[in-house]
Amino acid sequence: MRMYDVIQKKKTGGKLTDEEIRFFVEGYTKGDIPDYQAAALCMAIYFNGMTLDETAALTYAIRDSGQRLDFSNIKGIRVDKHSTGGVGDKTSLAVSPIVASYGVKMAKISGRGLGHTGGTIDKLESIPGFRTDLSPEEFEKAVNGNSLAIVGQSADIAPADKKIYALRDVTATVDSMPLIVSSIMGKKLAVGDDCILLDVKTGSGSFMKTLEKSEELARIMVEIGRRAGKKMRAIVTDMDRPLGNAIGNSLEVIEAVKTLRGEGPADFYEVCVTLAANLLNLAGKGTVSECTELAERAVSSGAAFDTLTAMVRSQGGDTGVILDTGKFKKAGFSRAVRAGNTGYIRKTDTEGYGVAALLLGAGRNTKEESIDYSAGIILKAKTGDFVNKGDEIATLYTDDESRFTASEKKLLDSTVIGAEKPEERPLILSVIE
Amino acid sequence: MRMYDVIQKKKTGGKLTDEEIRFFVEGYTKGDIPDYQAAALCMAIYFNGMTLDETAALTYAIRDSGQRLDFSNIKGIRVDKHSTGGVGDKTSLAVSPIVASYGVKMAKISGRGLGHTGGTIDKLESIPGFRTDLSPEEFEKAVNGNSLAIVGQSADIAPADKKIYALRDVTATVDSMPLIVSSIMGKKLAVGDDCILLDVKTGSGSFMKTLEKSEELARIMVEIGRRAGKKMRAIVTDMDRPLGNAIGNSLEVIEAVKTLRGEGPADFYEVCVTLAANLLNLAGKGTVSECTELAERAVSSGAAFDTLTAMVRSQGGDTGVILDTGKFKKAGFSRAVRAGNTGYIRKTDTEGYGVAALLLGAGRNTKEESIDYSAGIILKAKTGDFVNKGDEIATLYTDDESRFTASEKKLLDSTVIGAEKPEERPLILSVIE
Repeated sequence: MRMYDVIQKKKTGGKLTDEEIRFFVEGYTKGDIPDYQAAALCMAIYFNGMTLDETAALTYAIRDSGQRLDFSNIKGIRVDKHSTGGVGDKTSLAVSPIVASYGVKMAKISGRGLGHTGGTIDKLESIPGFRTDLSPEEFEKAVNGNSLAIVGQSADIAPADKKIYALRDVTATVDSMPLIVSSIMGKKLAVGDDCILLDVKTGSGSFMKTLEKSEELARIMVEIGRRAGKKMRAIVTDMDRPLGNAIGNSLEVIEAVKTLRGEGPADFYEVCVTLAANLLNLAGKGTVSECTELAERAVSSGAAFDTLTAMVRSQGGDTGVILDTGKFKKAGFSRAVRAGNTGYIRKTDTEGYGVAALLLGAGRNTKEESIDYSAGIILKAKTGDFVNKGDEIATLYTDDESRFTASEKKLLDSTVIGAEKPEERPLILSVIE
Repeated sequence: MRMYDVIQKKKTGGKLTDEEIRFFVEGYTKGDIPDYQAAALCMAIYFNGMTLDETAALTYAIRDSGQRLDFSNIKGIRVDKHSTGGVGDKTSLAVSPIVASYGVKMAKISGRGLGHTGGTIDKLESIPGFRTDLSPEEFEKAVNGNSLAIVGQSADIAPADKKIYALRDVTATVDSMPLIVSSIMGKKLAVGDDCILLDVKTGSGSFMKTLEKSEELARIMVEIGRRAGKKMRAIVTDMDRPLGNAIGNSLEVIEAVKTLRGEGPADFYEVCVTLAANLLNLAGKGTVSECTELAERAVSSGAAFDTLTAMVRSQGGDTGVILDTGKFKKAGFSRAVRAGNTGYIRKTDTEGYGVAALLLGAGRNTKEESIDYSAGIILKAKTGDFVNKGDEIATLYTDDESRFTASEKKLLDSTVIGAEKPEERPLILSVIE
């Protein structure tokens, strides 16, 4: 088999066989196939797409490119939740303890943030002492003890994805449905969960800007997971505005903690309860409606908060900042961002909000950059709110004062204020299974 | 400027600016832009094409990537002919001496063959002693003396084309109109000719399989050459069957020599006279009809043959094989290929004929392979001829007997024999200027 022929076939609209797809993924991972041929194939896939069968074959080849975690030593039903990424999306921090508080096992492998979206691992690392690099034995012990542990992805899981993603990132081939699906699901399926709930974000702060595209992504991922033997569901949720009010690592941990104490923003609470209820339902804990009550009770009873605290302790983190979030290190500087005119916030370019946080030091543009954990944004007004000229719409936080100007400009440029009140859009847009 | 943005722009259907195109060509030639980004861009160009302005900018950037030959020391009007490549296409060997015999300067820079099409330099190198690597001074002297010299392309001319072509060759991005045009014309325009005649081949043995595509290619190349200040014309000629009867290096030189002696195949003679007449016309030697007479007279008088002999002598070649072609080294083995049934040769897959010659050792699959100069095919019957089952339709020649089986099979598989006589197709299909 020759890589040239694989490229030529896809370029001319042909359907690649499982063997051809595995030949590419294995050869590229091993270094037998050069970057330039892989780049040509990715661009041909961008233009000609892939059938569901091809996308599935690509996903499974990526899954099989490295180590697979079987989790057979973790007792009980194992569930996972994956978000396609958004701005202010700290749901894992709140949803996981709710679900785990009922003994459902959440053995989570999470990622770091890149670009305008944050990553759960970065958020957790804003907790002093928190270890995201547990050994396999420590990880299993933590999950068996507390039903919950969250660690970073090891280099051994789906190495093909790392290599292909890095190439797509520099060849303008990130925005291709089959390449997105296979990247997400290739990693997820390498981990031995029984059920996977996908939180597919849609709107200006997410990868998929339209509901139609988001639902298509959700459908393909659900089908590919199901063919691999997983119990699957996807919830399409709104990312046309940031989720909750906090953007930035420790700021988001604080918001998640507050939410588990019943003091969080209503939008974030609603999404968390919905996701937790669906996870509990997938795990066989009752109907979605019954599970919604369970999720709400885990918050009101304090059980979810206790589970989060236990997880932080078992992973070496300082529980002091969880029990009193005032103890988190504060940013050196803050600045109020004020509305330039009077009216309703009609819409936001939510990706722009993510970039504004990035500009404060809350994220990284390249994998090598370090993060300012206390940097970020607290929103005081969101889409649909009425503001007067001069009202504070957000507070910016950073350790580097020189960062304010660019961030403030980006945030204001990303905020549209007008006379007419915008239509309300539900947070939960569709359920796909 | 970032290469990522250039790829993204072309991928999303944008029109690249001159600056963006030069940034790519210069950066890639220097090695600042990696192969994988260049491959992604070539594939995006394959899918989204390029406007005439973009194609022109790409051509001129390739032209300017290396040395430009000004030819100002060559006296008189300088013309060049370029063929897009075909099977049995030895026209340069016969056309150049006809034109040069009238004092019109033919300072030809030619290429080697790759794949199923042969190259003029390989053909000339089948003449013992013939040097295709004259120094610039030797080259000028030879052209000023004899009006004709043919040398190989130096590495200094259009190095961007070499690098881009090598990449296209392994990434399945050869068959893109703007990339084909810029590759051919980028090299041609680096050489200081006054007039360029393009012989654009069309049909199963050429790059462009349809007349429509061939005419489009011709029109774009003519326009881009004209914008660069050249007198341009293109003749679209038939390559749905091999040109002449000989395929293979020394076999083609022999056929060209015979043609200049008035003993060549009628189809090859017709194409040569047409091309020579158009070159003489471009050089101001009279109307095309007058120049046709001039071309015919150069053959019948022996002047063209004498010019060829003089060129071979001035480039160090053994004129003995020109004066008596029986002195060419003969292949060690020959085999007759016989018709499998009775009827008309309805059509040939002419590229298949080129591959059959390649399989005998007449060409190379990779640039590193060496050539068996005496290997090749002499056709005994061509499209439109009636053959009886068992008639010899071709003779194969090679120094390696083991090559016969595959070559014979390829030739027979590429020949369609049927009851109905095929429609006649003219050799000269259109003139574009």
